[in-house]
Amino acid sequence: MGNIKIILAYDGTNYHGFQEQRGTKFVTIQSVLEERLARLTGREIRIIAASRTDAGVHARGQVVNFIADDWPIPVERLVRALNGILPEDIVTLSAEEVPGDFHARFSAVAKTYCYTIYNSPVPSPFWRLYSLHVPHPLDIEAMREAGRYILGKHDFVVFRALGTPVQSTERTLYTVAVNRSGLLVRLELRADGFLYHMARMIAGTLLRVGMGKVLPGSMPDVLCGREKRLAGPVLPAGGLCLERVEYGP
Amino acid sequence: MGNIKIILAYDGTNYHGFQEQRGTKFVTIQSVLEERLARLTGREIRIIAASRTDAGVHARGQVVNFIADDWPIPVERLVRALNGILPEDIVTLSAEEVPGDFHARFSAVAKTYCYTIYNSPVPSPFWRLYSLHVPHPLDIEAMREAGRYILGKHDFVVFRALGTPVQSTERTLYTVAVNRSGLLVRLELRADGFLYHMARMIAGTLLRVGMGKVLPGSMPDVLCGREKRLAGPVLPAGGLCLERVEYGP
Repeated sequence: MGNIKIILAYDGTNYHGFQEQRGTKFVTIQSVLEERLARLTGREIRIIAASRTDAGVHARGQVVNFIADDWPIPVERLVRALNGILPEDIVTLSAEEVPGDFHARFSAVAKTYCYTIYNSPVPSPFWRLYSLHVPHPLDIEAMREAGRYILGKHDFVVFRALGTPVQSTERTLYTVAVNRSGLLVRLELRADGFLYHMARMIAGTLLRVGMGKVLPGSMPDVLCGREKRLAGPVLPAGGLCLERVEYGP
Repeated sequence: MGNIKIILAYDGTNYHGFQEQRGTKFVTIQSVLEERLARLTGREIRIIAASRTDAGVHARGQVVNFIADDWPIPVERLVRALNGILPEDIVTLSAEEVPGDFHARFSAVAKTYCYTIYNSPVPSPFWRLYSLHVPHPLDIEAMREAGRYILGKHDFVVFRALGTPVQSTERTLYTVAVNRSGLLVRLELRADGFLYHMARMIAGTLLRVGMGKVLPGSMPDVLCGREKRLAGPVLPAGGLCLERVEYGP
């Protein structure tokens, strides 16, 4: 067995993000997964993730891969074996062998994030960890209009928090969808990649548009940096979920 | 202000049930609510609940009342004031003044509980605290058929765990509904009252019917006690939620 691809779902509430933080004792999704893989196989495994989700961010379709030579477990038994020893807030949805050149991060062609707002005068105890509670009425149409201005290929540097340096801050946003279903408002963002905090800053900007504090027509000025102060804020982590990662054919 | 009725929603995960357990230090919904009401008003308040939900059981529509004479807070401000100091897993949905003879438990004419099953080969990290994970396929029609046999007025003593003595074990079950929505299967039970563990034991029996381990046609024998061993098991608390409590006109 060579290169293994795994799809994961997790509740990020109790983790300090996906990526192992060397020199710290913070529990991360990566540290738990690598520890369990080592326990299963007696081998040291290093995993690569499509997206290094932040502390408190959730995933329904995170993708990881790892190279496993001389591997003792048939891949078709891996889902059950891993779920048997993972904590209940991390679940392996699927496992398969992939070509040797598959790389969870570099092979990804698109990622979809969803930001969930619980829009009701009173909060919900059941959504408190998976949404942002917004008691004010929201203008969904205005949020959609604002979203249309940022669709496509742009320099998204204003929607980026300080973080690790990147080569380019240009990204292509394929989808900005805003939908209400009962008391939930969901913002879906699909792009070829996301800058650090980009999804949560776009969500924060659209939320302010929905509350009438920013006009949809200001979005071009926000995007080009003329109205940089209107970008954001970075919304809290709990509302964000990595929905899926897409790969080429 | 005299008699105050409050509707509550809570995530029961972190509580040892609703009712305060005297002589123990367990944190209950009641102890938290009474402590916060005392903090708000400077008075000692004793609350009465429609249902004393067990440890880990949730509520979307628990009803409580309390007598508050010489009360310092207008009832229309109570929802916001309470939610401002309650922990995030307990939420006040509404508050109103009611006639002096209203009693959250004794005035109730019907209660609805819902048991949620997450029916998928792999579990969900997001439903782990609010459902029972059942990987086996379920025969929803068989569960519905079994449910029809227990509708109406019966002695439900076989669906009762040992607990506080009650005067009568006769109850009237008005609704047994079984519905699938995506990966969720929901069992809704509406009755004039529930015996200790009755909802979770009926859910356990219907689950075994759905798995093909008990025939729907056995239900009359289960109910009358001839096949008592087929009643139950008591399903885990996390799947159960008190949906609503109804009162007369």
